[in-house]
Amino acid sequence: MKAEVITVGTELLMGYTLDTHSGFLSQECAMLGIPVHFHTSVDDDRDRLYQTFQLAQSRSELVIVCGGLGPTLDDLTKETLADFLNVELIQDPAALEALQSAFAGRSIPMTQNNLKQTYAFPNGTTFLNSRGTAPGLAVTSEGVTYILLPGPPGEMRPMFEDQIREFILSLIPNRRIIVSHPLSFFGIGESLLEDQLKDLIQSETSPSIATYAEEAGVVLRITVEADSAKEAKARIELIRQEILHRVGDFCFSEKKEALEEVVLSIMQERKQTVSIAESCTGGFLTYLLTTIPGSSQAVLGGVVTYTNKIKERMTNVSVDTLQKYGAISGETATEMAEHTRDQFQSDLAISVTGLAGPTPAEGKPVGEVWIAIAAKNGKTEVHHHMIRGQRKRVQLLAAKYALFHLWQRLKKG
Amino acid sequence: MKAEVITVGTELLMGYTLDTHSGFLSQECAMLGIPVHFHTSVDDDRDRLYQTFQLAQSRSELVIVCGGLGPTLDDLTKETLADFLNVELIQDPAALEALQSAFAGRSIPMTQNNLKQTYAFPNGTTFLNSRGTAPGLAVTSEGVTYILLPGPPGEMRPMFEDQIREFILSLIPNRRIIVSHPLSFFGIGESLLEDQLKDLIQSETSPSIATYAEEAGVVLRITVEADSAKEAKARIELIRQEILHRVGDFCFSEKKEALEEVVLSIMQERKQTVSIAESCTGGFLTYLLTTIPGSSQAVLGGVVTYTNKIKERMTNVSVDTLQKYGAISGETATEMAEHTRDQFQSDLAISVTGLAGPTPAEGKPVGEVWIAIAAKNGKTEVHHHMIRGQRKRVQLLAAKYALFHLWQRLKKG
Repeated sequence: MKAEVITVGTELLMGYTLDTHSGFLSQECAMLGIPVHFHTSVDDDRDRLYQTFQLAQSRSELVIVCGGLGPTLDDLTKETLADFLNVELIQDPAALEALQSAFAGRSIPMTQNNLKQTYAFPNGTTFLNSRGTAPGLAVTSEGVTYILLPGPPGEMRPMFEDQIREFILSLIPNRRIIVSHPLSFFGIGESLLEDQLKDLIQSETSPSIATYAEEAGVVLRITVEADSAKEAKARIELIRQEILHRVGDFCFSEKKEALEEVVLSIMQERKQTVSIAESCTGGFLTYLLTTIPGSSQAVLGGVVTYTNKIKERMTNVSVDTLQKYGAISGETATEMAEHTRDQFQSDLAISVTGLAGPTPAEGKPVGEVWIAIAAKNGKTEVHHHMIRGQRKRVQLLAAKYALFHLWQRLKKG
Repeated sequence: MKAEVITVGTELLMGYTLDTHSGFLSQECAMLGIPVHFHTSVDDDRDRLYQTFQLAQSRSELVIVCGGLGPTLDDLTKETLADFLNVELIQDPAALEALQSAFAGRSIPMTQNNLKQTYAFPNGTTFLNSRGTAPGLAVTSEGVTYILLPGPPGEMRPMFEDQIREFILSLIPNRRIIVSHPLSFFGIGESLLEDQLKDLIQSETSPSIATYAEEAGVVLRITVEADSAKEAKARIELIRQEILHRVGDFCFSEKKEALEEVVLSIMQERKQTVSIAESCTGGFLTYLLTTIPGSSQAVLGGVVTYTNKIKERMTNVSVDTLQKYGAISGETATEMAEHTRDQFQSDLAISVTGLAGPTPAEGKPVGEVWIAIAAKNGKTEVHHHMIRGQRKRVQLLAAKYALFHLWQRLKKG
């Protein structure tokens, strides 16, 4: 089965909105063994959209279309497809009910244009949208299945996870599978990682090995095509062992988790608690931990001490320390972590202080970061990093390094 | 001048990396009056890349290529273009010097493969990369200009801003301009905004009006094509006035700024300070404010009180209040804000408490959020919102609503 992805919206072609869907859907289709051969972006224009459907029908059996299902005048994806397939849309009672109940719980009034979102294809499928007002739709015509999904990623992705993957699987009973196993690394750059695994990367084709630099860290993927999940697993396992043998110290997850998820699940399992003291990261480290559901079991809270006076008042950093070593120092980081541990009465406390930029301060360069981890028992440990890049990148990587060291500490036991 | 954008990398076609470049570059080219007609993504394969260059040469005068300039084996963009143009790459002394000095300041060793990044086109242009190791390159052949840019967005975008826009402008002396004026809205949905401006949106073609839902808020763009900046400005101004007359209360910026930037610049101008107390947002509100350079003038810091016990200890919320009204209440928000203002001795303090989910608590639904703003002088104000969506969305919108109310408060004087 050959597939293609079409994304609809003038905002894409003008560059105001980025197409995050083609990549996501290609990845998901690959996992199901369905190659995606084309990505097309088209603006909110009936004729060009119609032509895009004509082309897609001629070369694909599965056409996934994102966007243009909203309530406004320029949303015309399903109307144009109905035209192209020469069918008339009908109101779907389930979609109408879902829309009415969605608006019942909101302070925003339902306008007349919302109603057009309740129309669906005869003999088609409607996928209710738990996170927005536009349902997804599917219809098959002349051997081609069209799946229409809402444009907002916060709606499209959960709909895919909850309903669409299963629907696509129902279209292909006998398939050869592609299995991909991710290994997430931090604390080792992409070049250095490749250098360590050069021979494996060059010699292996199935399983193949590829590295991808992420916003923070690197993901390595072992990918194999096989007849069964069991065969795929066995072939991946051999090479996985060799990789972990060489660079396993930097591999924090094999489940596409973020560092904060890994840290939290260890702490939740051990019923340990943590508190956080932040300077240059401005609350981002605490936030990363609280993005994970159930984090309140382990995360008691934190303080952001953004000025020297507040560092004294809120984290008891001594005037002496600030004068002698400066706010950007291991000594300040240590006092921040230890005081926060005492104040929050947490098992562990972690602090970050540094210089996010753009201008140097205290005679220290932009990107200098100090991290301290204090525990109820044991000595406080201190780490030093020089992070290259812009303000937001320094903040991001400082927070991720803090999580990385916390993870290493937890691994030690 | 017709342009196209090519993005290179297997990770794009497999869906592991999203193409953020085509959109960005299309937008930038539109601003310069250059229409972009094609976006192509191609994997790290010499033959397919060669074919893509052939096609581009046949239909465009400006070809912007992103990615494949890195140090690793699968980076082959410039080598393939050199093949295609039948020229030999030469080492650029300036690029070599920049690479050596970049590695001098880092703890990571320079590997041999980094050196290939110092090779450039004869009679071409090299754009040094202040944020990474791969320089950008440009070369003109048979009337077509090729611009090669590094793949990482943190490198490509600053390079575009600092060097490439100017370079492209130098290619087109007499151009008709497209001017686009953005208005950023918060607190009004896209449907409602369009509803209020329906007649203008339908009747106007130049200037045209279009709305784009952002992650938080809506951006409206007035776009006009004109012979001069002065003409464009006058034509935009007429319609801008009408829009602001109708929905100006929700328009927080006309400069593509984020809410946090607008809030901070007002506070910095007035030399006011703020502190923050957060529960459900977990530090994200404080972080948003600290992403802005110079924020430490206004932002003293904050506390994240993630459990009831910590709310008592760190923000002095009374046991009575917590028992009678719960942590998710206007009363708790008020006490958090007022105590934080006193503790940090800031002019203003803002608090957020709510339920990010995924499970209801205290008999309150997911998405219920309370925001309080306390000031040195004047009564503490309280706001209530019901936010629909997943955990991260609730956190994001709760923080943005807090900024929105802070902005409204500051506007009042």
